[in-house]
Amino acid sequence: MTILKVAIVMGSSSDWPTMKLTAKQLDDLAIPYEKHVISAHRMPDALANFGKTAQANRISVIIAGAGGAAHLPGMLAANTTVPVIGVPVKTRTLNGVDSLLSIVQMPGGVPVATMAIGDAGATNAALFAASILGVSDPEITKRLSEFRQAQTKKAEESEAMLDD
Amino acid sequence: MTILKVAIVMGSSSDWPTMKLTAKQLDDLAIPYEKHVISAHRMPDALANFGKTAQANRISVIIAGAGGAAHLPGMLAANTTVPVIGVPVKTRTLNGVDSLLSIVQMPGGVPVATMAIGDAGATNAALFAASILGVSDPEITKRLSEFRQAQTKKAEESEAMLDD
Amino acid sequence: MTILKVAIVMGSSSDWPTMKLTAKQLDDLAIPYEKHVISAHRMPDALANFGKTAQANRISVIIAGAGGAAHLPGMLAANTTVPVIGVPVKTRTLNGVDSLLSIVQMPGGVPVATMAIGDAGATNAALFAASILGVSDPEITKRLSEFRQAQTKKAEESEAMLDD
Amino acid sequence: MTILKVAIVMGSSSDWPTMKLTAKQLDDLAIPYEKHVISAHRMPDALANFGKTAQANRISVIIAGAGGAAHLPGMLAANTTVPVIGVPVKTRTLNGVDSLLSIVQMPGGVPVATMAIGDAGATNAALFAASILGVSDPEITKRLSEFRQAQTKKAEESEAMLDD
Amino acid sequence: MTILKVAIVMGSSSDWPTMKLTAKQLDDLAIPYEKHVISAHRMPDALANFGKTAQANRISVIIAGAGGAAHLPGMLAANTTVPVIGVPVKTRTLNGVDSLLSIVQMPGGVPVATMAIGDAGATNAALFAASILGVSDPEITKRLSEFRQAQTKKAEESEAMLDD
Amino acid sequence: MTILKVAIVMGSSSDWPTMKLTAKQLDDLAIPYEKHVISAHRMPDALANFGKTAQANRISVIIAGAGGAAHLPGMLAANTTVPVIGVPVKTRTLNGVDSLLSIVQMPGGVPVATMAIGDAGATNAALFAASILGVSDPEITKRLSEFRQAQTKKAEESEAMLDD
Amino acid sequence: MTILKVAIVMGSSSDWPTMKLTAKQLDDLAIPYEKHVISAHRMPDALANFGKTAQANRISVIIAGAGGAAHLPGMLAANTTVPVIGVPVKTRTLNGVDSLLSIVQMPGGVPVATMAIGDAGATNAALFAASILGVSDPEITKRLSEFRQAQTKKAEESEAMLDD
Amino acid sequence: MTILKVAIVMGSSSDWPTMKLTAKQLDDLAIPYEKHVISAHRMPDALANFGKTAQANRISVIIAGAGGAAHLPGMLAANTTVPVIGVPVKTRTLNGVDSLLSIVQMPGGVPVATMAIGDAGATNAALFAASILGVSDPEITKRLSEFRQAQTKKAEESEAMLDD
Repeated sequence: MTILKVAIVMGSSSDWPTMKLTAKQLDDLAIPYEKHVISAHRMPDALANFGKTAQANRISVIIAGAGGAAHLPGMLAANTTVPVIGVPVKTRTLNGVDSLLSIVQMPGGVPVATMAIGDAGATNAALFAASILGVSDPEITKRLSEFRQAQTKKAEESEAMLDD
Repeated sequence: MTILKVAIVMGSSSDWPTMKLTAKQLDDLAIPYEKHVISAHRMPDALANFGKTAQANRISVIIAGAGGAAHLPGMLAANTTVPVIGVPVKTRTLNGVDSLLSIVQMPGGVPVATMAIGDAGATNAALFAASILGVSDPEITKRLSEFRQAQTKKAEESEAMLDD
Repeated sequence: MTILKVAIVMGSSSDWPTMKLTAKQLDDLAIPYEKHVISAHRMPDALANFGKTAQANRISVIIAGAGGAAHLPGMLAANTTVPVIGVPVKTRTLNGVDSLLSIVQMPGGVPVATMAIGDAGATNAALFAASILGVSDPEITKRLSEFRQAQTKKAEESEAMLDD
Repeated sequence: MTILKVAIVMGSSSDWPTMKLTAKQLDDLAIPYEKHVISAHRMPDALANFGKTAQANRISVIIAGAGGAAHLPGMLAANTTVPVIGVPVKTRTLNGVDSLLSIVQMPGGVPVATMAIGDAGATNAALFAASILGVSDPEITKRLSEFRQAQTKKAEESEAMLDD
Repeated sequence: MTILKVAIVMGSSSDWPTMKLTAKQLDDLAIPYEKHVISAHRMPDALANFGKTAQANRISVIIAGAGGAAHLPGMLAANTTVPVIGVPVKTRTLNGVDSLLSIVQMPGGVPVATMAIGDAGATNAALFAASILGVSDPEITKRLSEFRQAQTKKAEESEAMLDD
Repeated sequence: MTILKVAIVMGSSSDWPTMKLTAKQLDDLAIPYEKHVISAHRMPDALANFGKTAQANRISVIIAGAGGAAHLPGMLAANTTVPVIGVPVKTRTLNGVDSLLSIVQMPGGVPVATMAIGDAGATNAALFAASILGVSDPEITKRLSEFRQAQTKKAEESEAMLDD
Repeated sequence: MTILKVAIVMGSSSDWPTMKLTAKQLDDLAIPYEKHVISAHRMPDALANFGKTAQANRISVIIAGAGGAAHLPGMLAANTTVPVIGVPVKTRTLNGVDSLLSIVQMPGGVPVATMAIGDAGATNAALFAASILGVSDPEITKRLSEFRQAQTKKAEESEAMLDD
Repeated sequence: MTILKVAIVMGSSSDWPTMKLTAKQLDDLAIPYEKHVISAHRMPDALANFGKTAQANRISVIIAGAGGAAHLPGMLAANTTVPVIGVPVKTRTLNGVDSLLSIVQMPGGVPVATMAIGDAGATNAALFAASILGVSDPEITKRLSEFRQAQTKKAEESEAMLDD
């Protein structure tokens, strides 16, 4: 049986500098993933097809990053029951407020789990995917806990970095 | 040959009190139209199909009203080259700012012609559809001009309504 | 072995009219849950304790609703690796924009899966919890799919409700 | 008979770096256009005259770009029934939020078809003009469809650009 | 020689409940005024004509109230050197933020003196007109000073109104 | 008798790069002025004294520029009946939205004539002061008209600057 | 020696329904206070005098509530070194966002301790005043601790109020 | 008996460039302080412990700086009755609006004294701490008064820095 994997989907290759942080965090947690560019507005058929076949393709969690009128996460969610995590990419004009509202303000019935705007959100999307997988996979929860402990340790040690 | 017509599409029947103003204005201009509820998130297949067949179905202009993470206008535009006019419906939490940004901030490549939030936008969507049709139909331009003249007259006369 | 369950946590009993929609949706999907009032600012010890014992208490997903400087979802996430879904409750002064930003703008390292402001978000929190559980529980995915199909059918039929 | 053409109008020559993208996109679609600087506040007579004579001058669509208290698109629309597309130019202080609201929030009776803030909006204004002309000109619709297909192809191929 | 007078202009008779406060305050200061409805978008010729003839018509100050994409104050200013005071009328969707930005964000070269949104702004427009006239008319300055003293007295006495 | 003059007042010497544009525009119109730094929060006594003595000191118009919690224009207005024009200086964190709201949202009773945020507002403050003085000084109105005509001419000629 | 007391100051008697909550909370903590209406814009001399004499009048903490261009807290702070707590009163047009920014965005050098908009802020102003006094008065800290414990208990018990 | 001291706490060492201004201002006023990095989300136990032991550790005032979903100040306040001053650190995406709302919009019952966003707020946090300590320590009030006088003098002298 093919192993379950995460899918990172972005609306444009210009979102990659942000979404690369998702990939990096998944790598660090040893969670397998694939990555795709699927533009909601330029590739609507590919989008619908990706959503509809996600479960059959053994995708357990979709992480979708997009900016502006960011329809990608919501339209993926409309085409699957696989959990969709949305990352609002920062935009040049409105700093990602448009991306955030377009992603988070989904109507009752079709949720998208929205992360913070930009880099922090991209990293957190990976961590949240891990916590989802951890519900049924104690090994991933273990890795996530270790990451969290290391992160805490790093935060504790950073106090020494304050110069006078 | 079937006559060209306008399509009014809304994301939910709860948008009808707003979009009804579009219908009324089209009626007043004697422009034929049909009206549909197509939820972007609950009926994504119907949405894609509607967009793809719009031109063949003799639809000349699509007017799409939606609220919140309003993906309907943009996703219709992604599936057709028929002009799509978007009406941001006022929302309870954010007054339609979310609807406005989700509709207007389309990426380069797939435009949606965005109107004002709420009632004014719904009326104007019909008038803008008329101006589009008027590019090739002098009769509609004539009706639009008459509407505008009547509107100007009414505005001029309203001064008498100011009490002391 | 105790069955896995969802926990609905809210910052104040005044959030219940919103969070009740989460409960109702979980009921409809036959997903077991418990509900609690834990104020981040008035009951910080209870909050930390709840987070730390969540996994041991067989809680698989935490849904946390709060308004204003809404610290509850983020602080629960800080105390557990169980996935936390945040619902920004609408506020009287800022309509929930404060709640939304306080919940969604988490720093890299500790995610909260944020839903829409208010009622839509409360319903969607339950649906997203179901999609999380569905990753490992095909029965829940089945129920979720049925809900989605029924919802689509209802949306399709609503077109008939448009009066003339 | 003179051929129909699009008019690009901007409030200041400082809007040209943005509106140049409209010109480029029209060039790519082989749609003839003329371009003008008409400041709503410094050249109000020229503005009114331009609007009033647009139809007689065989202008089929007006694309108006302006920033700040962007009155140009709305005042052109007030002086003609030719369709007016508004492009909110990004501003230094408010990033174009002022331009957007000044253009999109037109009162019922006189619509302006508003595009996204800045570069994306400038490109899309040309594409929307093409879709308007395409209502009666199948040749333009054909070119627009080809543009859209090429754009889709380019988006599909961009996935290969994601480094590891 | 005709006496100098203030002109109150509003974009719609629906602005009168707000602009009536301007009229009342001018009455209280015994400053003569006339009032008009001139819609920027429905009566652009009347607007231009009003601006161009204002000085000849012995109008010393124009007070213009408008809502939404509020072009009236700015376009009056574009057509005259008579000082124009703008009152952003509160709107149903955006509470007058659209009106405020459309009025205040005028480009360098053509100013509009902007007041607060809504009722406070309408009252203050009259008071500011009085201070303008007071530059050359000591009698009006005297009346304005008396108004201010009475207002101060009233504020001082209001402390007694605080119940326990 | 001393000639009437304009006073430029700013809250900090760091506002001078903006307010210098006011000085330049007054110079161009040959309107005499003086300039001062008076911090509302660091020099409240000087502020009150400046307001109270403005009229006696033959100041006809006060132009006050300030940023952030910009109390200078409003507090000057509280201490005089001389017309006060407020210039919201752009701020590093909020781009001058804070300055704008702190200046424009004056309560009924004490107006401040608010200009656009930043450079455009600083220039316009001088032009508006000229229009105020022009109510009783035809010579200044003449100069203002000439400025406006030159400005119109310059705008007209700028069309030639659009490259291809 | 006169006992130290808190002063509640508000810009208008219309702020009393909000600021009454401050009074009530101080009553509950048995902290003596006086209350005043001092309009920053209508009573600037009284404002300055109140600030300058506050310390001599044995006022230990000033709580100032105001709305809109809320200059009262900042100008009091400009006239004293006694700590000033600001309460942004909710406004009809902008919901208190204007009040908040006018109060909180003080320049470096003169702080105002800003509370939440509206009722929550009014209550919290009293509690923060208590914590200030508690720095040197263990009796007040004791009362504050008791209040906090009672509040925690009440929050804990509220869970029972969730109906099914 | 150990002397009372101020605690500067920040959510991340990346906040130090801002919070360093607090330290510098406390140094200038000769007020003893300690500084710590305590991440609300990565070190929740340390946070709770710091709050609970603050009073016993002779900390009289806590100054907490944080950005984004800034939970640190509010959660410290939830764990102590020692006064907590919050500094909203400027963020890359939302300029600190998220930090501001997350800190200032505390619910009734647990106040945080909020300062301006960024550098001005960091400086003012130290000055406000001084005014708190000054309630019972005339020596600190004296130093604060001297600082304020020096600051006023510097502001007065800055007028000479305006070039022509």
